[in-house]
Amino acid sequence: MRGEIITIGDELITGRVCDLNAHFLSGRLSSFGIKITAISSVGDDPEAISGVLARAVDRSQFVIVCGGLGPTEDDITVRVAADFAGLPLVLDEEYLASIRNSLRTRGVPWAESFRKMAFLPEGASLIDPKGDSCGFYLYHGDVPVFFLPGIPEEVRLLAERKVLPLLVRKDRDKAVVRQRLFKVFGLQEARIGEILEGVTGSEKGARIGFYPNYPENHVAVTVWADTAEQAESVLGRLEAEVEKRLGRYVVAKDAATLEESVGILLKARGLRLATAESCTGGLISHRLTSVSGSSDYFERGLVVYSNEAKQELLGVPAEIIEEFGAVSAETAVRMASGVRERSGVDIGLASTGIAGPTGGTPDKPVGTVFLALAGPAGAGARKFKFSGRRGQITSITAQTALDMLHRYLVDDTFLFRH
Amino acid sequence: MRGEIITIGDELITGRVCDLNAHFLSGRLSSFGIKITAISSVGDDPEAISGVLARAVDRSQFVIVCGGLGPTEDDITVRVAADFAGLPLVLDEEYLASIRNSLRTRGVPWAESFRKMAFLPEGASLIDPKGDSCGFYLYHGDVPVFFLPGIPEEVRLLAERKVLPLLVRKDRDKAVVRQRLFKVFGLQEARIGEILEGVTGSEKGARIGFYPNYPENHVAVTVWADTAEQAESVLGRLEAEVEKRLGRYVVAKDAATLEESVGILLKARGLRLATAESCTGGLISHRLTSVSGSSDYFERGLVVYSNEAKQELLGVPAEIIEEFGAVSAETAVRMASGVRERSGVDIGLASTGIAGPTGGTPDKPVGTVFLALAGPAGAGARKFKFSGRRGQITSITAQTALDMLHRYLVDDTFLFRH
Repeated sequence: MRGEIITIGDELITGRVCDLNAHFLSGRLSSFGIKITAISSVGDDPEAISGVLARAVDRSQFVIVCGGLGPTEDDITVRVAADFAGLPLVLDEEYLASIRNSLRTRGVPWAESFRKMAFLPEGASLIDPKGDSCGFYLYHGDVPVFFLPGIPEEVRLLAERKVLPLLVRKDRDKAVVRQRLFKVFGLQEARIGEILEGVTGSEKGARIGFYPNYPENHVAVTVWADTAEQAESVLGRLEAEVEKRLGRYVVAKDAATLEESVGILLKARGLRLATAESCTGGLISHRLTSVSGSSDYFERGLVVYSNEAKQELLGVPAEIIEEFGAVSAETAVRMASGVRERSGVDIGLASTGIAGPTGGTPDKPVGTVFLALAGPAGAGARKFKFSGRRGQITSITAQTALDMLHRYLVDDTFLFRH
Repeated sequence: MRGEIITIGDELITGRVCDLNAHFLSGRLSSFGIKITAISSVGDDPEAISGVLARAVDRSQFVIVCGGLGPTEDDITVRVAADFAGLPLVLDEEYLASIRNSLRTRGVPWAESFRKMAFLPEGASLIDPKGDSCGFYLYHGDVPVFFLPGIPEEVRLLAERKVLPLLVRKDRDKAVVRQRLFKVFGLQEARIGEILEGVTGSEKGARIGFYPNYPENHVAVTVWADTAEQAESVLGRLEAEVEKRLGRYVVAKDAATLEESVGILLKARGLRLATAESCTGGLISHRLTSVSGSSDYFERGLVVYSNEAKQELLGVPAEIIEEFGAVSAETAVRMASGVRERSGVDIGLASTGIAGPTGGTPDKPVGTVFLALAGPAGAGARKFKFSGRRGQITSITAQTALDMLHRYLVDDTFLFRH
């Protein structure tokens, strides 16, 4: 099945916002094996909108339009869509109710201008009649055209709940579709392909898709079936097999993140954590604390940029820094053990490295990083060599540190194997 | 002048990457008052590419195409462009040399396949003949069509250096154009408009444009003139006037960031800084240390999530936390003073607040934040009430903390005025 995406709004063609909706929708559809052939963005201009609509319905099997459903003067998508289809606008009472609901949920007071939003082209169907998001679809011949709002959160909600299942079921002519997303870190895309070779076996109603989502690679397993029971049973089998094959490289599933996976494991075991960061400058603790409820397991984080701070706050001996350097396995291990002991937690996690662009030496070029972890059974460090600009190096370092912590929580002997 | 942007690549229509090039180019053009009427993204498909090209040259005064100039099989933009224009492909020796240069700069070894890239449609001109980036343009009638690579860094470089000046000069038929960007924080867009009302005075060759770049608002001053001297003299006058009117709300200029502005001020005065963060969880220190050379003025950062950490590491008295709460002006001030004294630096900066979604009370709802700064002359705190999701609250808190530091560095008496 091949479709097109149209995004509407002056804010898109003047560069005020990035087109997150097109990016999200094309990525999600692609994960189900459905192809988008073109993405078109135009401003709040009737002629431009009907031009792209006309071309899209002419050559596609479905069209998704985002933006311009709001109450203001420049929200003209619905009027243009009606004119284009030669349909009158009629008040949809059910839609009016759902708009009122949506406003209430978001705490926005009612205004008469919102009433305008409830006039839809005759024959249009609401996407989510009982939901509180706005959006409708109508058919041009046998081409469904979905009209979604421009707000990314609402697009995600409506797409996941209604539009994607509808299109994906239609694509294979099956009543039910289920998908599980595996977030993989530490394996190249090609290697993941090899590992998962033949994993669907004789399951005809299943599909595996890969896509890079730097620094992770995401694996989407989709199952089509006639009943929910069938779909879930097949998905369950495939999920178990994928997890068995990819093992600890799966760092999160579905909407979860690596830092959330780590948080769940720490919480489940009643373990507490502290961090000591040099080159990452607080990015590790920022990611850990971006999880709501992280105060249950995250005790403190120290950003020890100077050597004095490393000595005073963590007790790293001056001789160690002198002999091996601030960027060394020895210093990293002392940082991890130091923050663990001094804050009285179970696990200490430390980073030290050269983020650049200056500070590199022939021995330790820019991108050289040491990560260390200290737990009740001892401490260990790993050396890495990353490349890129300063921001890229700190970002991949933080991800690798969280992955090291995740790996330790899955199997705490790994640190002592070489 | 009205133009269109075309972006090419399967990675765009499968959602593997977000279309940063279209976003960047439309924003930059818009800041010069040049309108983009449509953005079209298509895959590596000859028919789709020539389709969007044909429509674009037919209705626009210029077209910018990004992507598909590379050496691989699926990089077909040049061939399609030549076919579309009915021109043969000919080897451009100058271009071949610049490709070799570009590869050398990026440390990529030469391969025979790169030779393919140097075949351009007959009559095409290189955008940057002496540069090391690839890109060319040709005319369809009197419509210039620019072909740029897909790599965002290269697009930025070529656009800033060549494509934008060319289009912007052409737009007003002037030989020289200069622009200065002011990054403003703490003022609404409408208020900025009022403050800058009439700032260009009788200067006919000048334009002021605004665009939101959350959480900042950016103000672009553009000057067109016949000579560089003229342009720079007018720009200098306008720059001084804009700065006088906006005062300390200008937090950075051109490509610089707020954290870079702060770094420059700290360095110039020989001041050293330490941070104590609660609700921001390390984001303030992460932003400060994202600046190369920040180790010259950033001594340490403490992420004090637990009350014990606040007491142990910063010496915040238990009674203060008990009486006023961990989220209070009193605690914030003790955090800032504590980190300043204990690390022996000149300035301590502290954050404490409720990032949500849980933890709010009727008295201190989610989004309540206290920021404090301690310097040689004393310490002060400010209370804020932000809204949004957890990530939005921590992000605006970090920005506001850096702004508070910036403001203090510009005028260190502000903390003691109310």
